[in-house]
Amino acid sequence: MFLYTKNFDEQKAKAMEGLKKALAENKVDGDIISLLEKINSLENYFTTSSCSGRISVMEMPHFGDKVNSVWLGKWHREVTVEEVMEAIGRHRSGQLWFLVRSPILHVGARTMEDAVRLLNLAIGLGFKYSNIKSVSHKKLLVEIRSTERMDVPLGEDGELWVSESYIERIVALANSQVRRFKGKLKRLEGEVGKL
Amino acid sequence: MFLYTKNFDEQKAKAMEGLKKALAENKVDGDIISLLEKINSLENYFTTSSCSGRISVMEMPHFGDKVNSVWLGKWHREVTVEEVMEAIGRHRSGQLWFLVRSPILHVGARTMEDAVRLLNLAIGLGFKYSNIKSVSHKKLLVEIRSTERMDVPLGEDGELWVSESYIERIVALANSQVRRFKGKLKRLEGEVGKL
Repeated sequence: MFLYTKNFDEQKAKAMEGLKKALAENKVDGDIISLLEKINSLENYFTTSSCSGRISVMEMPHFGDKVNSVWLGKWHREVTVEEVMEAIGRHRSGQLWFLVRSPILHVGARTMEDAVRLLNLAIGLGFKYSNIKSVSHKKLLVEIRSTERMDVPLGEDGELWVSESYIERIVALANSQVRRFKGKLKRLEGEVGKL
Repeated sequence: MFLYTKNFDEQKAKAMEGLKKALAENKVDGDIISLLEKINSLENYFTTSSCSGRISVMEMPHFGDKVNSVWLGKWHREVTVEEVMEAIGRHRSGQLWFLVRSPILHVGARTMEDAVRLLNLAIGLGFKYSNIKSVSHKKLLVEIRSTERMDVPLGEDGELWVSESYIERIVALANSQVRRFKGKLKRLEGEVGKL
């Protein structure tokens, strides 16, 4: 059981249609498109979802409540203090957080052996939180993920708990994390053809 | 390939020896011991490492450099503002961070089918970041992990960037995350016998 994906080629064709649509609607992060194309050109893999990593300012009723969360600002690149302050200015209620998330890619693999080869390549290139996310008759899903992350509470219900100079500090740290994970994405793009 | 763990019983016996030693040396988080015992009483699983989740104050040369990081304070429970301030008082150089980490358990499984059953149970009980961490002839390792996390920069090279009232805020948030993941551990302990 669970050694290979049933109807892999059919599933891949469907995923490729979905990706084509997402690309046409500008819903794919620009700097990850060439990596997705490289992965999808391989016979035994296809991408199902991806994010190239991001900095964001988010308002949420309480931590972890994704459904009722609102992004006040979201960037898949380095940011300026001004951009972040502007997003903070739109805060009204709930908890206010400054977040960094590493890139994340979900990749379907034809066989468990293919899944493990991609997993080990990704871990070796610095994507240390990579793993096999789900295993079933329907799919073998590899998650490629890195360690960069920040979760900083900034305030609540309109009140700001930190100073602008603190925002400057965390923006600098976040930008250095962005540079780090973008470098890893480039390395992965260079190496993924070897699979 | 990779469908089952070679020499599972031998590996389990070794892991159980290691656990016995760690228990004797007081190196296992007290509130997770009964869960570990329950998992290890199952025929097809054994635990290899675990942490019951923690709040910490850490000093590091730069983000992600684990080797040169120093814990100024570490607690596997709710904390008081005084305890955190005392840890901060020991800061001298490098980046100073306030961190929350969810519980994490690594569990060896006899077969891929066993691994997937544990994975799905854990995800269903709120350990949403659970995954299959490694797959090889030598081991099938399930990682049980939850979403609670904080990474808050506090200062650098002896300088503190935030106020004591900010510390009060983040301690309250961290304690509520601790209550949440301890509840999940209790639920897992109640359900794991069903496997």
